[in-house]
Amino acid sequence: MITDRQQVTDMIVSAKVSKGVKWRDVAEVIGQSKEWSTAACLGQMAMSKEQAEKVGEIFELSDEAVAWLQIAPYKGSLPTAVPTDPLIYRWYELVNVYGTTLKELIHEEFGDGIMSAIDFSMDLTREEDPKGDRVNVVMSGKFLPYKTY
Amino acid sequence: MITDRQQVTDMIVSAKVSKGVKWRDVAEVIGQSKEWSTAACLGQMAMSKEQAEKVGEIFELSDEAVAWLQIAPYKGSLPTAVPTDPLIYRWYELVNVYGTTLKELIHEEFGDGIMSAIDFSMDLTREEDPKGDRVNVVMSGKFLPYKTY
Amino acid sequence: MITDRQQVTDMIVSAKVSKGVKWRDVAEVIGQSKEWSTAACLGQMAMSKEQAEKVGEIFELSDEAVAWLQIAPYKGSLPTAVPTDPLIYRWYELVNVYGTTLKELIHEEFGDGIMSAIDFSMDLTREEDPKGDRVNVVMSGKFLPYKTY
Amino acid sequence: MITDRQQVTDMIVSAKVSKGVKWRDVAEVIGQSKEWSTAACLGQMAMSKEQAEKVGEIFELSDEAVAWLQIAPYKGSLPTAVPTDPLIYRWYELVNVYGTTLKELIHEEFGDGIMSAIDFSMDLTREEDPKGDRVNVVMSGKFLPYKTY
Amino acid sequence: MITDRQQVTDMIVSAKVSKGVKWRDVAEVIGQSKEWSTAACLGQMAMSKEQAEKVGEIFELSDEAVAWLQIAPYKGSLPTAVPTDPLIYRWYELVNVYGTTLKELIHEEFGDGIMSAIDFSMDLTREEDPKGDRVNVVMSGKFLPYKTY
Amino acid sequence: MITDRQQVTDMIVSAKVSKGVKWRDVAEVIGQSKEWSTAACLGQMAMSKEQAEKVGEIFELSDEAVAWLQIAPYKGSLPTAVPTDPLIYRWYELVNVYGTTLKELIHEEFGDGIMSAIDFSMDLTREEDPKGDRVNVVMSGKFLPYKTY
Amino acid sequence: MITDRQQVTDMIVSAKVSKGVKWRDVAEVIGQSKEWSTAACLGQMAMSKEQAEKVGEIFELSDEAVAWLQIAPYKGSLPTAVPTDPLIYRWYELVNVYGTTLKELIHEEFGDGIMSAIDFSMDLTREEDPKGDRVNVVMSGKFLPYKTY
Amino acid sequence: MITDRQQVTDMIVSAKVSKGVKWRDVAEVIGQSKEWSTAACLGQMAMSKEQAEKVGEIFELSDEAVAWLQIAPYKGSLPTAVPTDPLIYRWYELVNVYGTTLKELIHEEFGDGIMSAIDFSMDLTREEDPKGDRVNVVMSGKFLPYKTY
Amino acid sequence: MITDRQQVTDMIVSAKVSKGVKWRDVAEVIGQSKEWSTAACLGQMAMSKEQAEKVGEIFELSDEAVAWLQIAPYKGSLPTAVPTDPLIYRWYELVNVYGTTLKELIHEEFGDGIMSAIDFSMDLTREEDPKGDRVNVVMSGKFLPYKTY
Amino acid sequence: MITDRQQVTDMIVSAKVSKGVKWRDVAEVIGQSKEWSTAACLGQMAMSKEQAEKVGEIFELSDEAVAWLQIAPYKGSLPTAVPTDPLIYRWYELVNVYGTTLKELIHEEFGDGIMSAIDFSMDLTREEDPKGDRVNVVMSGKFLPYKTY
Repeated sequence: MITDRQQVTDMIVSAKVSKGVKWRDVAEVIGQSKEWSTAACLGQMAMSKEQAEKVGEIFELSDEAVAWLQIAPYKGSLPTAVPTDPLIYRWYELVNVYGTTLKELIHEEFGDGIMSAIDFSMDLTREEDPKGDRVNVVMSGKFLPYKTY
Repeated sequence: MITDRQQVTDMIVSAKVSKGVKWRDVAEVIGQSKEWSTAACLGQMAMSKEQAEKVGEIFELSDEAVAWLQIAPYKGSLPTAVPTDPLIYRWYELVNVYGTTLKELIHEEFGDGIMSAIDFSMDLTREEDPKGDRVNVVMSGKFLPYKTY
Repeated sequence: MITDRQQVTDMIVSAKVSKGVKWRDVAEVIGQSKEWSTAACLGQMAMSKEQAEKVGEIFELSDEAVAWLQIAPYKGSLPTAVPTDPLIYRWYELVNVYGTTLKELIHEEFGDGIMSAIDFSMDLTREEDPKGDRVNVVMSGKFLPYKTY
Repeated sequence: MITDRQQVTDMIVSAKVSKGVKWRDVAEVIGQSKEWSTAACLGQMAMSKEQAEKVGEIFELSDEAVAWLQIAPYKGSLPTAVPTDPLIYRWYELVNVYGTTLKELIHEEFGDGIMSAIDFSMDLTREEDPKGDRVNVVMSGKFLPYKTY
Repeated sequence: MITDRQQVTDMIVSAKVSKGVKWRDVAEVIGQSKEWSTAACLGQMAMSKEQAEKVGEIFELSDEAVAWLQIAPYKGSLPTAVPTDPLIYRWYELVNVYGTTLKELIHEEFGDGIMSAIDFSMDLTREEDPKGDRVNVVMSGKFLPYKTY
Repeated sequence: MITDRQQVTDMIVSAKVSKGVKWRDVAEVIGQSKEWSTAACLGQMAMSKEQAEKVGEIFELSDEAVAWLQIAPYKGSLPTAVPTDPLIYRWYELVNVYGTTLKELIHEEFGDGIMSAIDFSMDLTREEDPKGDRVNVVMSGKFLPYKTY
Repeated sequence: MITDRQQVTDMIVSAKVSKGVKWRDVAEVIGQSKEWSTAACLGQMAMSKEQAEKVGEIFELSDEAVAWLQIAPYKGSLPTAVPTDPLIYRWYELVNVYGTTLKELIHEEFGDGIMSAIDFSMDLTREEDPKGDRVNVVMSGKFLPYKTY
Repeated sequence: MITDRQQVTDMIVSAKVSKGVKWRDVAEVIGQSKEWSTAACLGQMAMSKEQAEKVGEIFELSDEAVAWLQIAPYKGSLPTAVPTDPLIYRWYELVNVYGTTLKELIHEEFGDGIMSAIDFSMDLTREEDPKGDRVNVVMSGKFLPYKTY
Repeated sequence: MITDRQQVTDMIVSAKVSKGVKWRDVAEVIGQSKEWSTAACLGQMAMSKEQAEKVGEIFELSDEAVAWLQIAPYKGSLPTAVPTDPLIYRWYELVNVYGTTLKELIHEEFGDGIMSAIDFSMDLTREEDPKGDRVNVVMSGKFLPYKTY
Repeated sequence: MITDRQQVTDMIVSAKVSKGVKWRDVAEVIGQSKEWSTAACLGQMAMSKEQAEKVGEIFELSDEAVAWLQIAPYKGSLPTAVPTDPLIYRWYELVNVYGTTLKELIHEEFGDGIMSAIDFSMDLTREEDPKGDRVNVVMSGKFLPYKTY
């Protein structure tokens, strides 16, 4: 009996290590970006029936697990409010150090409102650099102005 | 007597509202990007003597305040571990929802290590879109592999 | 020197008590709902120049304070993550008790996504009831589906 | 041996995914609103014997589980004080941003007291809108004045 | 300029120490119980105009302070979620040790619902006892059943 | 193997739901108040051998479980510092709102010291009231003065 | 205007540094132990009129400050739940490491109950030791058994 | 497979309840004080091979468990930063109320430094007293001065 | 099914106790320092295939476990933000007491930037000393200057 | 009136920026290492009379401030339990990632006990490196074995 989406994520992660699957291969099979596909497998996005079945094949999941992949999950992938993992912490640090800067510049350009984290996409690529390759991430979110009423 | 970089940030923010200065104008005067310039004015980066003096002129700061702008500040711009401001919270949410995805994809591409938040730059632009303009942010950080010893 | 929007909120709240102003009168003067107007005066919304000047007149604010009313504020009106005030706590309790219910029903009706807190309005009215009058609050937020990419 | 209401909630949620049951169908069977019915199934309300037995049939629960549905549960449906799930967080954000506004307007209309979260009902509907459908939630709670003694 | 009810509480507490006023004398003057009167002076209840004026006389408060006494305050009298003061901590401990007992017994007697903390009164008296006098506190709160809808 | 008093509490609570036992019946069998008896069953008090054996009979506990009932337990019955359950929260709220009032009035009557939570008893009764029945709780704790040395 | 016992503690601490007073001299003047006297000066105990006046003389306090010394203070001398100061942290660590041991041994000797922190005294002395002098602290608290009712 | 010292502590505590062993008997068998012996059994000290084997006999532990008793454990015996158990809380309260007093008096006697919690011993005894027996605890820790370099 | 790196760490720690393996022997077998090797076994570093197989042999791990050793783990080895174990706490205390000193001296020598915790190595040795042997730890991290852009 | 060591730290930091003093120059004047001297100026160590007077001359402090420099301060230099400043955070991260490694290796070499943070010194130097200069920190702390008694 599966009672929680996390159990399906555990199955996927476990199968991924045993089988040596790559996220980019999963992405190709379900026909979405590697960013969305990984997030969906890790329990942050709901899949369509077709996507769920393909993922189920890749990781040899039960029908019950495949059904869970189509449910809108309880999101949030971190075990603590301030992440302890150094890679993820650097992103938290960016929000901490640059948070007020992002706020100022978005308001200067767009006025009061936010950048959506829902109508959002991102793209992560390797930028070759003789001084050491770089991680490039492009984030794109719709600006949503505060409604006056 | 100034005892804390925050006091200089307060002076800058206060003068900015009174004078109606734009961050992009500050950036132009000191010859850096608007992202770095804003972060520096908000107490997250140390300025060179020349940069500090120009900022001092724009905001009519005292010599003591200009000296403080050249000190490496105690960084971190948020009053709480989980930010309450909706615009900044969306960025925290992105780290929470996509944190493990970023970790997986960077490791898949580069191996164990992190994306630097120090050897880092970012660029925020408006992308026009008939369904509503979008905020685009490009982030670039050097990949640093864990050292084996 | 004003360095923080909270200082302007303090001025407004202080003047309101001394002068016995009603929020609904403020709303009428600036031509918006009482909900938006109160939130704006309490530092949660940015005002237009015209709105800010009218509010400035009502509460006899300085020009500097009026300038601050037009700045997108750092939002979040509560001093603690779990509010201690009984009236506000009841709202937190509703989120705690009904949070998963709201999630289930919105997903059942709309699929994966959220109800916007930005493209949002609310209307609070008194409903007369012989067993004790009731507070009625209508909340309306645009549904935003998660983007697949 | 069932030792905790959460175990019954897990059984219900698990069966719901496997069987593809809708909350609105559960509501119809037990003759209550979809809001109350969902909250009750998710462990936030106690059911009558009759309601519990009907729910037990829908989800094929054991007699022991049906007995637990009639116990007043330890309420609170969120794993963290500040919810991480984006849909639920928006509601928390509304309390954070509009909390003091709700307080001011209820006091202005009713005097000192609270809006009850116990003598309370809510109704969630879809409002069609050419610019994107909206989630409408009507909340109704009895006003309870502070007793003077 | 008074910007916060806490400032008026500070004035009252300060004057009380200097003048050696007793809470029970305040209660007599305003014609309410010593429990309600003390809570009101400490910023937890709103006073009527007449009550506020009498309190103003006792503690020689300004008109502005007297106006603040009539405002519904932001309640919650403790600086930390878990109180450090030993006397107050014992009450927190009672909730911690006996909380589930209170829940069980109220539900056994009344069914699902709560004991109101709003339609509530309490009475504290000294009970003489040869083995050491005792503090007796009688608390009375209306039972509020959960509404089914 | 039982390693924790909580496991015995789980057994009792589980058996209570299945058998439909009332706390007041348990109290009668062990010859103590319903308040003390419930707290003891819920793992907050240590029982005598005789009491433990009677409780063991009521709930059909093993000898090992009966032995555990006689051990002074690690007390504290709440899973979070601020309780989420609305019934228990109201008690926490009373401590928060009235904590400083209790402190002032006990000190005014008795001087510096505390009301004991150990040499303590309480009695919960239903008070019939045409406007809605009330929960009455009488708490009695020995006053303990701070020792000067 | 003094509004808080902490302000008087600040005055005492400030005067102590300037004048080079020793706590043991304060103790001698007021005729109590150095432990109680220091705690009282640091805002953790209430003084008698006579004691307060003598302390007032030593530190040249105003009459208002002397009046505050006689008020039962809001106790708790640490700014954070886990103390950061290494000397005080060692005591917290002792509670953390030996807390369950103290619990087991007191229960083994006395049965269920606590060691009072109110009917309590302590005595700190230097024990000379060729391997390095030792701090010896004798703590004595009345055992209070849990009342059965 | 034992993966954590806590599992061995659980075995010891479970066997102790079933067999009715006393800590003072354990202490006698291993030839150390009851304080050290109890702390060691509860997972706060590492035992020698000989001590571990004797403890293993008393509680009928497996060889694997006996091996774990000789490992320096991850210390800290409390489940929350502020302990909820009333007996242990009183010790936390002593640190909170008397922490600054201990700091002042140790510095007055010894200068800057700490009292060691490692080169430390304690002795808990019952002091008979006609007004109620007392718990006496003598703590002895080496003074360690801060090194200047 | 292994779903988490922590499970492999548990297997290693358990086997280490049973077999009496030394970390320095593990280090020798995999040909890295004892510091890196221990951290890697404890789930803080990713191993190469060859290293993982050798570690698998030492601790008799399954192929699945060996596969997990090659995955970049979710790092952070402490169960609480402030560690309770005395040995590890002393390191936290050093950061707390000397953190601002390290910041000042690194900035004085290098300008604004950080010492890398990724391009980092450390070496722990015993320094013999007649007054008591000392732990010597040499830490070496690359200086990373903040990038200006 | 100085009431807190932090006020003196503020004076020193403020004067240091205005005068452009270097920590290494302060160290030279008082004849101690730059590490100890900086920590002492930042309020983490107590100075001798002679040291305090020299520091007073460098930063032009009042006699009262010089007296405060000789008092053992309340230590802990960070405003939050998890530091937000990136440079200091890296040290916290090292404790988090390597904490259990340090524990294992110290126990393997020395047995159960700790490395002292009191009988401790450290030395920070620049190591030139063609791939980028490195920060080297040597830490030396006395090993303190747990006492058996």
